[in-house]
Amino acid sequence: MLRLAPFAAARCLPAGPRLGPLCLAGNSGSFARSRPPAGDRGPLSRQVRAAAGGERLPVLKTPKGTRDHPPAQAALRERLLGAVVSCFKRHGAAAIDTPVLELRETLLGKYGEESKLIYELQDQGGELLALRYDLTVPFARYLAMNKITKMKRYHVAKVYRRDNPATTRGRYREFYQCDFDIAGQFDPMIPDAECLKIVHEILSDLQLGDFVIKVNDRRILNGVFAVCGVPESKLIPACSTVDKLDKVPWEEVRSEMVAEKGLSPEAADRIGEYVQLHGGLDLIEQLLQDPKLSQNKVAKEGLGDMKLLFEYLSLFGITGKISFDLSLARGLDYYTGVIFEAVLLQQDNEHVEEPVSVGSVAGGGRYDGLVGMFDPKGRKVPCVGVSIGIERIFSILEQRLEVSGEKLRTTETQVLVATPQKHLLAARMKLISELWDAGIKAEMLYKKDPKLLKQLQYCEDTGIPLAAIVGEQELADGVVKLRDVATRKEVDIPREKLIDEIRRRLEP
Amino acid sequence: MLRLAPFAAARCLPAGPRLGPLCLAGNSGSFARSRPPAGDRGPLSRQVRAAAGGERLPVLKTPKGTRDHPPAQAALRERLLGAVVSCFKRHGAAAIDTPVLELRETLLGKYGEESKLIYELQDQGGELLALRYDLTVPFARYLAMNKITKMKRYHVAKVYRRDNPATTRGRYREFYQCDFDIAGQFDPMIPDAECLKIVHEILSDLQLGDFVIKVNDRRILNGVFAVCGVPESKLIPACSTVDKLDKVPWEEVRSEMVAEKGLSPEAADRIGEYVQLHGGLDLIEQLLQDPKLSQNKVAKEGLGDMKLLFEYLSLFGITGKISFDLSLARGLDYYTGVIFEAVLLQQDNEHVEEPVSVGSVAGGGRYDGLVGMFDPKGRKVPCVGVSIGIERIFSILEQRLEVSGEKLRTTETQVLVATPQKHLLAARMKLISELWDAGIKAEMLYKKDPKLLKQLQYCEDTGIPLAAIVGEQELADGVVKLRDVATRKEVDIPREKLIDEIRRRLEP
Repeated sequence: MLRLAPFAAARCLPAGPRLGPLCLAGNSGSFARSRPPAGDRGPLSRQVRAAAGGERLPVLKTPKGTRDHPPAQAALRERLLGAVVSCFKRHGAAAIDTPVLELRETLLGKYGEESKLIYELQDQGGELLALRYDLTVPFARYLAMNKITKMKRYHVAKVYRRDNPATTRGRYREFYQCDFDIAGQFDPMIPDAECLKIVHEILSDLQLGDFVIKVNDRRILNGVFAVCGVPESKLIPACSTVDKLDKVPWEEVRSEMVAEKGLSPEAADRIGEYVQLHGGLDLIEQLLQDPKLSQNKVAKEGLGDMKLLFEYLSLFGITGKISFDLSLARGLDYYTGVIFEAVLLQQDNEHVEEPVSVGSVAGGGRYDGLVGMFDPKGRKVPCVGVSIGIERIFSILEQRLEVSGEKLRTTETQVLVATPQKHLLAARMKLISELWDAGIKAEMLYKKDPKLLKQLQYCEDTGIPLAAIVGEQELADGVVKLRDVATRKEVDIPREKLIDEIRRRLEP
Repeated sequence: MLRLAPFAAARCLPAGPRLGPLCLAGNSGSFARSRPPAGDRGPLSRQVRAAAGGERLPVLKTPKGTRDHPPAQAALRERLLGAVVSCFKRHGAAAIDTPVLELRETLLGKYGEESKLIYELQDQGGELLALRYDLTVPFARYLAMNKITKMKRYHVAKVYRRDNPATTRGRYREFYQCDFDIAGQFDPMIPDAECLKIVHEILSDLQLGDFVIKVNDRRILNGVFAVCGVPESKLIPACSTVDKLDKVPWEEVRSEMVAEKGLSPEAADRIGEYVQLHGGLDLIEQLLQDPKLSQNKVAKEGLGDMKLLFEYLSLFGITGKISFDLSLARGLDYYTGVIFEAVLLQQDNEHVEEPVSVGSVAGGGRYDGLVGMFDPKGRKVPCVGVSIGIERIFSILEQRLEVSGEKLRTTETQVLVATPQKHLLAARMKLISELWDAGIKAEMLYKKDPKLLKQLQYCEDTGIPLAAIVGEQELADGVVKLRDVATRKEVDIPREKLIDEIRRRLEP
């Protein structure tokens, strides 16, 4: 049986700001206190370990890069996920769920370089397993396994990456993904346009401030690399280097291309002329006229589809937030066509001292080859999808709530059943039971004889709007005293009318 | 890159009944087809493997004991979880979430014998991790880590057990738990009674048929073993043997006690006299008068609390479904007081050929020592909680739906935007965009020129109640033809009144 040595207390203290006492009464607390403990051991804990002669001690923490969600965070998350799911349902998607565990072989070879970040399970006899890295590969496995050739689905679930997480920026090793995907052979760019419309709707609904959705196409990128003289074998390295252009200036990207990826300086310079371009329909037209690019078959296809996509996005009325950006490459191997990524634009906010730097808050693209990798006959099912970066959005909303000082209720209790004298526990239990059976959300304190003041204080602390009070007099009169917690007004209600009266008061 | 050999198709075929083509149009299918593929490899696949010279081939399946939830199952599950969560909220619980991953040392030493069923992750450098085995130990870790001494929380999430799952009985290696727990030092049996009330409410709400909630107390059991002459060292083995009494007759339990657990035949016989008893308040009274048991301090405490519990349950009006059952032991080590388990009573159902044998559908109890195991100073936080066995309930509901032939809608789409002629994609896209922006759930087919019949067929297949049709005439007249899919009635609605009219039609 595990026993914690007394100095384990000192050990877990410096690990990070601890959660406040998110206890039953008044449990919301400030978000500042609810930051997760940092994964790495602090200096003091190292001291303690050293003092103990390097012996490993039990630690009271969650694994590195993971965190608990106390009630206030869970309530905010529920609200946020609710908004995202309601958009997915608005677009007619059905829900599916797949296991957190997949066969290791299902995941291997699907993500390119990032495969090294997959969590593998110990071989405990039986199959070799791993934790899912995203929801896309399991979706493709699901389609292939069930021979499904058409489907519009959403999936909201946790995924796992052995990343070095920057938790302050909303990056974790365990995090939610909210995915919407359309699988099937359809007319070009119609499902793709809907994915972008969804990103636009969600980011607008959540009022996260100004944003831009960058769009590109793997075929255009490959065409650019080809006409710039990049050999086929260096396409993927070149692609992943270009992807860094949103973080570092072109000069750095260029020198990485030449020094590390072995591209010629001339090729790099030619690439630079293309990948620094961004714009709208005009840029697409310009590139369609580009003497070199227009000779490249895949680039031409990509540009033609990009033009069609812009036409559809204009019908959806959202081109104002779309930027055709040739530097967008996306990290994952499996994309084959349109790719996109939404970024929030930095805003001046005098209230926030250290604005959360969040980077991309949604991304996705077309992956027409992934399902075929699972099909024994290689049959392809074209797919396009979007993933909402819920953790980053959550970090922003969390910080915003903290700044506003607004308290989110963590429970939905409507009525506290209270008694003003001693020896009335039975009366409280009978009444609360009636309320529960009528579907009313009700609580009582778990004490035989609580003081009335304590009971009313509990209402105020936790935001319960009504108190139903039964004392000796009320029992004798066959009434219940209904108290409005905010106004402190009390009215006697005949017992048989209580449920109706409570429902009436709680109507929105 | 993984490539599936052509004969991998044969490999995955015999693994179990495959999921039907749960595709976009008409995707609900029958539940009979949606059983998960069995984890073990079938005989044909073994043949294939043999033919390939014993070489391991890629397999297209989910890990043993896990399953996908296609849309029809996901929709049913959403409904079921919604009912459970709404009961938890009715009782004033706040939600929390904890990581699926825990430090290995957090889980070890908490579950007794069952610890061997914990999934461990590979050591990939860094901390040693495992998948959570239940939600109770993580909850205790959470309380201790944050020094919380009072909390009422619920948690609905997946847990992992390397069990040999009987998937036909709704047992899996990855499954949802729905837990409600009350932590804190309160007056005796008040929170315990609420947990039983919750089980009663949920099982009644879900209309699962008749059920009984067995109740016992670890202190009573320990007292029984003590007065029957079982040495302290054999308490836990004796306990786990008694726990089998719901599956095998007393004679078998007795011989296991004597032959395997080393109890004397006399002790076993004395135990047998007690553990075959079950009843209500009368039995409690009888045991309180029992000459031997009444002399045992812990048994007497347990019986006193049991009497109080029955008093409270009678105030809640639920004693009719409660049975004080001395054979109930519960498998886990951490229980210290009241324990309980709800079982559905077998019903004659002529429609169901092979009734799902589900066993217990809810269970829980008091665990006053668990939080203290995590606290460096051993400070205890008394807890009591209940876990709803959602997977088993799901199996029953799933089978019931299958028998009834009822189709659950897997999407919530309210309107299909359709066009009756060619070259009207732009009109459809503009209209659907207006509907989405007004919050109406709308779909269109992803084709440039779909046939009207195909579009209407899609409504019928997926249960969409309304079609909004824009043709050349409608565009010219500034109207939209609104069609009621069920009655096939069509009315022209002025474009500017369409949203209001749709909302009016969709009012419940």
